[in-house]
Amino acid sequence: MSYHINTTHNPDLRSWVESANQPHSDFPIQNLPFGVFRSHGTTETPCIGVAIGDQILNLYLCYQAGLLQELPAQLQSACAQSDLNQLMAMGNEVVSILRHHLSQLLQWDEHPPASAQEMLFPMSRAQLILPANIGDYTDFYASIFHALNVGKLFRPDKPILDNYKYLPIAYHGRASSIVPSDTPIRRPKGQIKKPEVSAPIFEPTQMLDYELEVGLFIGVGNELGEPISIDNAEEHIFGLCLVNDWSARDIQAWEYQPLGPFLAKSFATTISPWVVTLEALAPFRCPAFKRTQDDPLPLPYLCSRLNTELGGFDIIVEVFIRSTLMRAKGMEPFCLSRGSFKQMYWTVAQMLTHHTSNGCNLRPGDLLATGTISGVQKSSLGCLLEITQRGTYLVELPTHEMRSFLCDGDEIIFHAYCEKEGYVRIGFGECRGIILSTA
Amino acid sequence: MSYHINTTHNPDLRSWVESANQPHSDFPIQNLPFGVFRSHGTTETPCIGVAIGDQILNLYLCYQAGLLQELPAQLQSACAQSDLNQLMAMGNEVVSILRHHLSQLLQWDEHPPASAQEMLFPMSRAQLILPANIGDYTDFYASIFHALNVGKLFRPDKPILDNYKYLPIAYHGRASSIVPSDTPIRRPKGQIKKPEVSAPIFEPTQMLDYELEVGLFIGVGNELGEPISIDNAEEHIFGLCLVNDWSARDIQAWEYQPLGPFLAKSFATTISPWVVTLEALAPFRCPAFKRTQDDPLPLPYLCSRLNTELGGFDIIVEVFIRSTLMRAKGMEPFCLSRGSFKQMYWTVAQMLTHHTSNGCNLRPGDLLATGTISGVQKSSLGCLLEITQRGTYLVELPTHEMRSFLCDGDEIIFHAYCEKEGYVRIGFGECRGIILSTA
Repeated sequence: MSYHINTTHNPDLRSWVESANQPHSDFPIQNLPFGVFRSHGTTETPCIGVAIGDQILNLYLCYQAGLLQELPAQLQSACAQSDLNQLMAMGNEVVSILRHHLSQLLQWDEHPPASAQEMLFPMSRAQLILPANIGDYTDFYASIFHALNVGKLFRPDKPILDNYKYLPIAYHGRASSIVPSDTPIRRPKGQIKKPEVSAPIFEPTQMLDYELEVGLFIGVGNELGEPISIDNAEEHIFGLCLVNDWSARDIQAWEYQPLGPFLAKSFATTISPWVVTLEALAPFRCPAFKRTQDDPLPLPYLCSRLNTELGGFDIIVEVFIRSTLMRAKGMEPFCLSRGSFKQMYWTVAQMLTHHTSNGCNLRPGDLLATGTISGVQKSSLGCLLEITQRGTYLVELPTHEMRSFLCDGDEIIFHAYCEKEGYVRIGFGECRGIILSTA
Repeated sequence: MSYHINTTHNPDLRSWVESANQPHSDFPIQNLPFGVFRSHGTTETPCIGVAIGDQILNLYLCYQAGLLQELPAQLQSACAQSDLNQLMAMGNEVVSILRHHLSQLLQWDEHPPASAQEMLFPMSRAQLILPANIGDYTDFYASIFHALNVGKLFRPDKPILDNYKYLPIAYHGRASSIVPSDTPIRRPKGQIKKPEVSAPIFEPTQMLDYELEVGLFIGVGNELGEPISIDNAEEHIFGLCLVNDWSARDIQAWEYQPLGPFLAKSFATTISPWVVTLEALAPFRCPAFKRTQDDPLPLPYLCSRLNTELGGFDIIVEVFIRSTLMRAKGMEPFCLSRGSFKQMYWTVAQMLTHHTSNGCNLRPGDLLATGTISGVQKSSLGCLLEITQRGTYLVELPTHEMRSFLCDGDEIIFHAYCEKEGYVRIGFGECRGIILSTA
């Protein structure tokens, strides 16, 4: 079902919200991603909104005005909440009913309801907050190019471990420190062990990095003890967003044995505020990563024909940087990399199926991130650790500033979008964070 | 403040709830742990309760009957909730006001309120559920004897890694699969790689283990970016419980490199339902683990004189097993080990301080577990991996059944208690789970 094209994808649809019809808008009427917002600078109760051009359609106001009254009562009620969890829990078929309804409501050729303008809120005046109450956050390691590049730095003799091609490696992350785009990131302190001395010191990280990832929000959950099969996996994925899994490489190097990353990651994780549904992404599905003849087949519980043929997403992902000096000079952000989500070794369905294969329960609003998205090309590496090879080769900014890792004042901005002939381009909006000095 | 003895610890106090005055009760009037319960077999809205002997004092009913009306309004309201999060968030000084009030209410020599019996519910008829909404769960590795024993099995040349004595190693665990005592545990399936074959297979774990741990519930949280100093750490700990961090050793061995344990742990974690407050534990404080001259001093952010002198807890922890055959024969559970929480290398204050040292935020109701509690003696090892040395030496049960790891039908029961001359013994109740076969 999440692969099917329907009327909401029709490239001829135009909206009465003019800005949605601009050719490079991230949020045409074919997208309709969900988020949660309030008026900037207030502490109002947040509302669920749908991005349309440079505006947000306020679903709470739509509900109050009776514009959703044709929908099932439970669905109307889910639209009037302050987070997406209830909507996510209803399942993708129900969310699809809402999508079709909103698509009609926003169409140019429909007579817009008299009060429709009043349901809109300018995105520029909105504070976008976390779209869901995130119960648990899991981070995968699904790009083999990332695993290979990082592996070469730390284990030159065996960069890819034996388990990598059999299971989607993952670890539990910290849910409490997930923040929405535009939240400033405080440079963390931590224990750092320099090679030339025997004891670690406690100081601000000198190797602050970003990691470019895609996040999956869980829709319907599963009961503890009841695995989800690969055939049903996508029914449990509400939609995708962008994730910046900020990392302190020096803290990580010292702490991560034998139980994995901890404080090197838990100081902050930024997500983009708009969740693009799987239905919106249907035109941009593609085959799963093609394994070589030398690669083992995945075990049967991670295999399905549909997953092989259409388990991937053709999403272009980009990283930009802007330093304090660049901002002072009024310069645009500088592109550090451009990659494709197509190149991930494991599909999102495989990640979800593996996650629940031991009976682990997922709950609506849980977040799974894919791990750093790196491609085979040098221009498509998803973190500075790889780009600079742990600080060995510096990146030069247009201001001639050099970077091995992030400096205070640096802003990191992720973009992502899907393009395909015969369809309207859709985007993910921004995932942005600026580095503050240690308090 | 959490170290101070006050009138609630007076060993002469007796309760009008007779069973609380029995010498081996876990729940005398000096304990007063908090939990959440409902009548067994119903789906009633749960209530907060306090364990007293074999009864539960229902705080919601106390609130309704006006028995809490001398307390601040917010505190009364926190007692009328369905989880402890609001109470935890109020801070230990406020919780202490409640403890003193409840101590008076339950005292023998006070005139019990006419309706007092009606506020009691027999523990035998209660279903005890999770005491709090647990946002994040973190698992430490704070016993150096456990780390040494496990390290010897996996890295005989270097069992203790260089970082171990500098920082309390930890990893993020899965919050969604934490269950209260008495929840059956389904044997998980997973990828298992046998040494003699090149590819893993997907099958039920053959190396199912328990891990004996103590859990810390967070009280007042901290804001993201604001570390908690060692001097203030205990003000953020509401209380302690027991934790069984069930582990599938064969799944763990295959999956854990390079990012740590994942599905080997996330299928279930059992906690005891009663949270013993730090105030109740005040008489049983003891010095932190004494490091040898060869051990490095912890870095300054993990050091304080008070922590060195009184950062430990003298808690006896015990593990019992009962097989299907033992139950059929009406036999009592068999003791597998008896250890002491005194022997942990890192204190709870050090764990909490380290956890927030990068600015990571803790929220009321978050759970930190200490990692397996093993002592230096063979009789004080906290998991079967250590006791049987990965299945090399079998354990014989009183039925002459042999165990390397857990069999279906095996029940694992943890107990813990504090004893000290001049004080009344207090206990933690049970943390219990029975193994079900794979579905």
